[in-house]
Amino acid sequence: MKSIILAGGSGSRLWPLSRDMYPKQLLSLDENTSLLQQTFKRLQNFCSPSDIVTVTNVKHYSDIKLQLNKLDKLNVVIAEPLGKNTAPAIACTLEYFNQKSSEDIVLIVPSDHLIKNTEAFCKTVEEGQKLAQQGYIVTFGIKPTYPETGYGYIKISNKLETGYKVEKFVEKPDFETAERYLESGNFYWNGGIFMSKISVLLDEFKKYVPEIYNNIEQLDYSKETKIKYGIYEQMPSISIDYAIMEKSDKIALVELQSDWNDLGSWQSLYSVKPKDEHGNVIEGKVITENVKNSFIYSQKEVVACSDLENVVIVETEDAIMACRLDKSQNVKKLYEKLKSQESDTTKLHKTVFRPWGYYTCMNEGEGYLTKTICVLPKQKLSIQSHNYRSEHWVVLEGKALVIKDDKEYYLNAGDSIDIPVKAKHSLQNPYDKELKIIEVQKGDYISEDDIIRYQDCYGRV
Amino acid sequence: MKSIILAGGSGSRLWPLSRDMYPKQLLSLDENTSLLQQTFKRLQNFCSPSDIVTVTNVKHYSDIKLQLNKLDKLNVVIAEPLGKNTAPAIACTLEYFNQKSSEDIVLIVPSDHLIKNTEAFCKTVEEGQKLAQQGYIVTFGIKPTYPETGYGYIKISNKLETGYKVEKFVEKPDFETAERYLESGNFYWNGGIFMSKISVLLDEFKKYVPEIYNNIEQLDYSKETKIKYGIYEQMPSISIDYAIMEKSDKIALVELQSDWNDLGSWQSLYSVKPKDEHGNVIEGKVITENVKNSFIYSQKEVVACSDLENVVIVETEDAIMACRLDKSQNVKKLYEKLKSQESDTTKLHKTVFRPWGYYTCMNEGEGYLTKTICVLPKQKLSIQSHNYRSEHWVVLEGKALVIKDDKEYYLNAGDSIDIPVKAKHSLQNPYDKELKIIEVQKGDYISEDDIIRYQDCYGRV
Repeated sequence: MKSIILAGGSGSRLWPLSRDMYPKQLLSLDENTSLLQQTFKRLQNFCSPSDIVTVTNVKHYSDIKLQLNKLDKLNVVIAEPLGKNTAPAIACTLEYFNQKSSEDIVLIVPSDHLIKNTEAFCKTVEEGQKLAQQGYIVTFGIKPTYPETGYGYIKISNKLETGYKVEKFVEKPDFETAERYLESGNFYWNGGIFMSKISVLLDEFKKYVPEIYNNIEQLDYSKETKIKYGIYEQMPSISIDYAIMEKSDKIALVELQSDWNDLGSWQSLYSVKPKDEHGNVIEGKVITENVKNSFIYSQKEVVACSDLENVVIVETEDAIMACRLDKSQNVKKLYEKLKSQESDTTKLHKTVFRPWGYYTCMNEGEGYLTKTICVLPKQKLSIQSHNYRSEHWVVLEGKALVIKDDKEYYLNAGDSIDIPVKAKHSLQNPYDKELKIIEVQKGDYISEDDIIRYQDCYGRV
Repeated sequence: MKSIILAGGSGSRLWPLSRDMYPKQLLSLDENTSLLQQTFKRLQNFCSPSDIVTVTNVKHYSDIKLQLNKLDKLNVVIAEPLGKNTAPAIACTLEYFNQKSSEDIVLIVPSDHLIKNTEAFCKTVEEGQKLAQQGYIVTFGIKPTYPETGYGYIKISNKLETGYKVEKFVEKPDFETAERYLESGNFYWNGGIFMSKISVLLDEFKKYVPEIYNNIEQLDYSKETKIKYGIYEQMPSISIDYAIMEKSDKIALVELQSDWNDLGSWQSLYSVKPKDEHGNVIEGKVITENVKNSFIYSQKEVVACSDLENVVIVETEDAIMACRLDKSQNVKKLYEKLKSQESDTTKLHKTVFRPWGYYTCMNEGEGYLTKTICVLPKQKLSIQSHNYRSEHWVVLEGKALVIKDDKEYYLNAGDSIDIPVKAKHSLQNPYDKELKIIEVQKGDYISEDDIIRYQDCYGRV
C-alpha cells in the first residue's frame, strides 16, 4: 500500500502558535511529536517509509523534511511551487506512484488531524481496503456527535460489504440542517481521508478534471521531487471534494472506528486536552484565580488571569491572542487583519528552527539586527558569506569552532570574533553541549536572503 | 504654606504596569508626566519647590528624586528606611518643617491620585486654609456618586464657615451600608487629603500617639534626609486615619471641588480614559474584533482580541495580565500569588530606568547575562569596576566614549571592547544622539550589587 500525506495547510486557525511559515502540522500540540510526525508514524503501520509521500508547499519543504528525517530518512516529500488546493497536489503525487505501479492502493490523509487510537484506525483501513480493491473510492466518514456547522457532510445510501455507497457530498450546513442530518443517521462528517486504487482515482481525474490530468504526465520525478512552476501554475486551484468526490459515482464510505479531531480551532484543541478541576487547560507559566472552562497557554512570559470563564489566551514571544473559547474560529479574522497589515506575527515565529539548531531575533534597528543563536551538539552552519553585512559573535554558553577565511578559531564562553563583509565563514559546534552565541549583524542591507552558501551538510547550497 | 507628598505606595493594584520597585506614582498613566510629577506641579500653585517635601521608602528614593529633579531641583525627598504606613511618615516630615516654623499650614496629599481640575482644587485649598488657621485639622471629602465599598467614609455634623465639623470616620462599609450613606447626604469619601497647622497636628501626635511623637525629636535633617533605621524601626506601623483622624475632636471637612480618582484599580483607570465607539480603551499594538467595554493595553508585542466584553488585558515585557474589568481589584490577589512565588515580575520591570538612560535584560544563563543599554545624549555611567564579572560591549547605534583603566576609546556602531574583571571603566555618550549597546556580562557571580563606584555625576558613589 502507498500513502499520501497532505501537508499544504496554512497557519491561521491556531494563530499565534501556528504561522504562515510554521503551520499546524508542524506543531507538537499534544505529545512531543508533531501532528505531521504522528501521522507519518500511524501510516508506518501499513506502508514502508519510502511509500509514504508527503506533499507540501515548497516554503515548508525544509521544515517538513527536517521533522520526517528524524523518523526515517527514506521518507519522500514532494514540493508544490505554489498552493493550488488538494486536487492538483493529490494528482501529482498519484503520478509519482503511477510511474512505478498503478494497481496499488493509496491512502490519502491530512497531516494535521489528531487520531489517538491507531488500532481502530488500522481496522478502518483494512475495511476500506476491501472496497478499494473492488474499484471504489473510499472515504472515511466520521459519525457526527453534535450538529457541527463547520464541516462538510456525506450522505450514505445502500449498504456494502464493509460500508455504504455514497449518495452525495454536501457543503457545510446551517444549524437547523445540521440538526436534521444528525437525527437522520444517514449523514457522516467528511474528514478528508480517502483510499482507492491509484488507477481508479487517476481515471476519475482524467474524466472529471482533464485540465489537471493532462499536466501531470509532464512530471519527471527522476531527478528531484520539487514540481516545476511551469507545470503547476497552469492547474486550476480546486479541492479533491469539488473536483472528484462530488461527481464520481464510485464513492463508498466506511465509518472511521477511531477517535478523530481536526484541531481546526482553539476550542477543538481544548476539547482533546486534559482539564483541571475548574475545567481549565493550563500550559506554561500561568497563574489563575477564579478562572473556569478556559485555555490559558504561556510560551515564555508569566500569564496571570482572574475572574474569567470560557476564554482562550495564548502568549507567544511576539504576539498575544485572547478570545472567547466557544468563538475561537474567529481567530482567523484576527489573523487576516494582521496579515493585511503585513504583521510579521502572521509569518514567522520569533524563534526560527533550522537543521543545525535555532535562532531568535532580539533587537532590530537602523543598520543592525541582533540574534541569539543556538547550535546543537555536533552541528554546524553552512560555509557562507554576506555581501552587505558584517557580523560580530560573542559566545555565551558552550564552545565554538569558527572558520573564517579558511582559518580555524576556537572560542570559549565570553570570547568574541568579527566576521567582515564578504569573509567566508562558518559557525560550528563539534562538542557535546549546546553552543549559544549572540550575533550582531551590521550593514545597510540586512536580510536572510543576503547569504551565499559554499558548503552545507544539510543540502542547502 | 508647606506640603507633604505621601509617596510610599506599593505596586500591586496596577500590576503588571506597576511593580514593587516602580509603583503607581511613578507611572505616566494619563499624560507624559507621572502621577507624582502631576501632584508636585499642582502643589507648586501654593508652595515654593523647597517647601514641597516628598516622603517615600528608601528603595524608591532614586526614582522619585530623578522624576522630581526634572521639575525643580530644589525639591526635598525624605526616605523612610522601611514602610510603616502613613502616620510615622507624616510625623517625621512634620518634624522637618517644625525645625523651621511650626505655625505654617501644611497640606498633606497622596502622590498617586488623579486630579485634573487644578483651579477647583486650589479653590478647595483656600477654603481649607481658613479652617486650618482656626485650629482645625481639615480633611478634603469627596462627594460620593455611587455606593462604593472600597473607600472609607467620613460623617459630617455642624456647618462651619467653609465646611463642616466631622462627626466620625468610618471604615469601608458593605454595599447596603454604602447605599444608606449615599442617600443620607451626610457622608463623604475619605480621599486622604488633609491640611492643618503644623503645631496643631504635632500636638495631636503627642496626645494620641506618643510612641511616634517621642521618636521624632531625635531626627536630624541637618546632614541628610534619609531617616535612620534605629529611629524608625521602633515606631508602630499605623495609618494617620487610625492614629489621629478617628480620635481627634478637631477634625473639619471641606468638600473637594475638583474631580478626583484614586486610580486604585484598572477599572478606575479605565473610567478616566477616553473610549472608542465600542466603549474600549485601546493602547499600543492592539487589534480587536467584536470587543466591547474593555481595556486592552500593549506595551511591546501585538495583542489581538476577539469576542470579549468587560475585560482588561495588559501586556508588558515580562508579564501578561487578563481579568474581568469590573473585578479588577482582584489583580491584587494575582500579585500576591506571584509574590509568594518570588516572581521577578512583581519586583522590577524588564526595562529599568537610571539617571543616564535605561537597560533591558535580555538573556540570562549559567555564568552570563546580556543587556541592551541605552545611554541618553550627554549622559554617562559612573566610573566603576566589578570584582566578579567581565563585560563585553558591542555598539549598536550612536557612538560611545569608553574609559578603561584611564585610557579613552572611541567606538562606532559595530565596534566592540572587552572590560576585564576589576578594570575601572565608564560608558559615556558625549554626543547628541542616543547610544545603544549590547552588554554581555560573564562571571560566576553576576548581580547588580557587584559594582564599585569611583565617580558618579548623579551622586551615587
